Amino acid sequence: VSDWFENGAPAATIPVDDRAVQYGDGVFETIAIRSGRPRYWGLHMARLADACRRLSLALPATSILERDFDRALTRTTVNIGFATAKIIVTAGVGQRGYARSRGAPVRALIGIFPNRPLDATLYADGVSVRLCDTPLATQPRTAGVKTLNRLDQVLAREEWRDPGIFEGLMCDADGRLVCGTMSNLFAVRDAQVATPRLSRAGVAGIMRRRIIDLLAANGIDCDERDMPKDELDDMHELFICNSQFGVLPVRRCGVRRFAVGEVTRSVMAMLADKEVPECRT
Amino acid sequence: VSDWFENGAPAATIPVDDRAVQYGDGVFETIAIRSGRPRYWGLHMARLADACRRLSLALPATSILERDFDRALTRTTVNIGFATAKIIVTAGVGQRGYARSRGAPVRALIGIFPNRPLDATLYADGVSVRLCDTPLATQPRTAGVKTLNRLDQVLAREEWRDPGIFEGLMCDADGRLVCGTMSNLFAVRDAQVATPRLSRAGVAGIMRRRIIDLLAANGIDCDERDMPKDELDDMHELFICNSQFGVLPVRRCGVRRFAVGEVTRSVMAMLADKEVPECRT
Repeated sequence: VSDWFENGAPAATIPVDDRAVQYGDGVFETIAIRSGRPRYWGLHMARLADACRRLSLALPATSILERDFDRALTRTTVNIGFATAKIIVTAGVGQRGYARSRGAPVRALIGIFPNRPLDATLYADGVSVRLCDTPLATQPRTAGVKTLNRLDQVLAREEWRDPGIFEGLMCDADGRLVCGTMSNLFAVRDAQVATPRLSRAGVAGIMRRRIIDLLAANGIDCDERDMPKDELDDMHELFICNSQFGVLPVRRCGVRRFAVGEVTRSVMAMLADKEVPECRT
Repeated sequence: VSDWFENGAPAATIPVDDRAVQYGDGVFETIAIRSGRPRYWGLHMARLADACRRLSLALPATSILERDFDRALTRTTVNIGFATAKIIVTAGVGQRGYARSRGAPVRALIGIFPNRPLDATLYADGVSVRLCDTPLATQPRTAGVKTLNRLDQVLAREEWRDPGIFEGLMCDADGRLVCGTMSNLFAVRDAQVATPRLSRAGVAGIMRRRIIDLLAANGIDCDERDMPKDELDDMHELFICNSQFGVLPVRRCGVRRFAVGEVTRSVMAMLADKEVPECRT
């Protein structure tokens, strides 16, 4: 039920020789479509540009991506009142072997997926999460970048089937919390807000960026730092975020229970005000 | 100029929704075809089975892979006197999100690529390698497995263009030698043979396995151990191996020069005898 487009035209397949298939040689963005328009388009384009730079991939012109994105939204059969888009940029077709072909054009794919708002009780009461055993690989070279190498997340997500568990939190091999399989993480202790540093692993989410900036605009510092998983026991509030659902309070991680706290509520209110109405409770 | 097959039939493309494209969710084998037959078929099938187990992927039946492989060799337009085959096993098509769909069948792709023997002088005199800056990610969960997440190797291979450099050696983030971008590494000091331990990163190559076993059969222990990169200075011989070229002496790594030593020669002779005639010098 997804629609994929390339150069504005439907494209359900790609060549097996594409380096995304062979090596995961590429990056992607996951963008919320609300009322027919992409949310945080500028932030996503800036992050995509940064990701391409980090991987030494030629950046597709934003104007062309924008045109193709508009075409995809026009042509899709998915209801774009509330949907999710993915933009994948791959290193394109290559010869066998790790060396990229000189001057091979990158490939940009745009996918539109149906989606629907989460149950309001999840925003009001919070979600249950678990601590995953699968560690995140430590790789400073691509830390923060949403590359197509996502086996860590896949293997972590395979750890549970219980539909009552909304998300799994992941640590690096040294037991530091980094992020969820599909979300970033914030923790609050005595009104001090912190989020894990992403210099060794993890994905630097758009919503994470937005929250840090909104907090700063409201005079609240957010500490980006190492966060040993043992600290979970001392935390008063925990919340997760991503570009699709916005912010969700965590009410339980394993046996540890959390109240939906003041900071979490105020972050949700800030976002709900203009940018992410889903967060209104 | 590659030929790809799926279920024995030509297959130049795969669905964009395949999890290999989206997440690199899969594994692969690279197999030498010599005189029309795959070399080390049994070893490759055993490693593929192990890789699927490590990633919780359903293993395609070996008998079916074998049948499809035969069909690919029959139908390809590539000269299979001397060629390279790739077998890719992906987690198949999935919904959006990291969770695999229950019961989704894996996809097995078989590619046949033209190849040709390396210049005999490389076997006789050795190759130049460099030490890469890009570290290998530390990930015990998939260490040793040839997964489709190969960005580390891609980025390392992007570090040089000099065609005189045959290979790049890679370290983990703690500066321990692990392997080359496309090969495994052996080092010799005072007739003691060692190869890096692959418990945190790296790919456990078929040719590496064969060499360790051949050495053992000849009464020579090979130490699988941590190998800080500083040890390179103290090594007397260095050689690299993979399933395609067999064994190549290293004559230079950066400014350090190595002689083609006795152990290297004898490993090459053992292999050349029956299994890898390319190594005959």
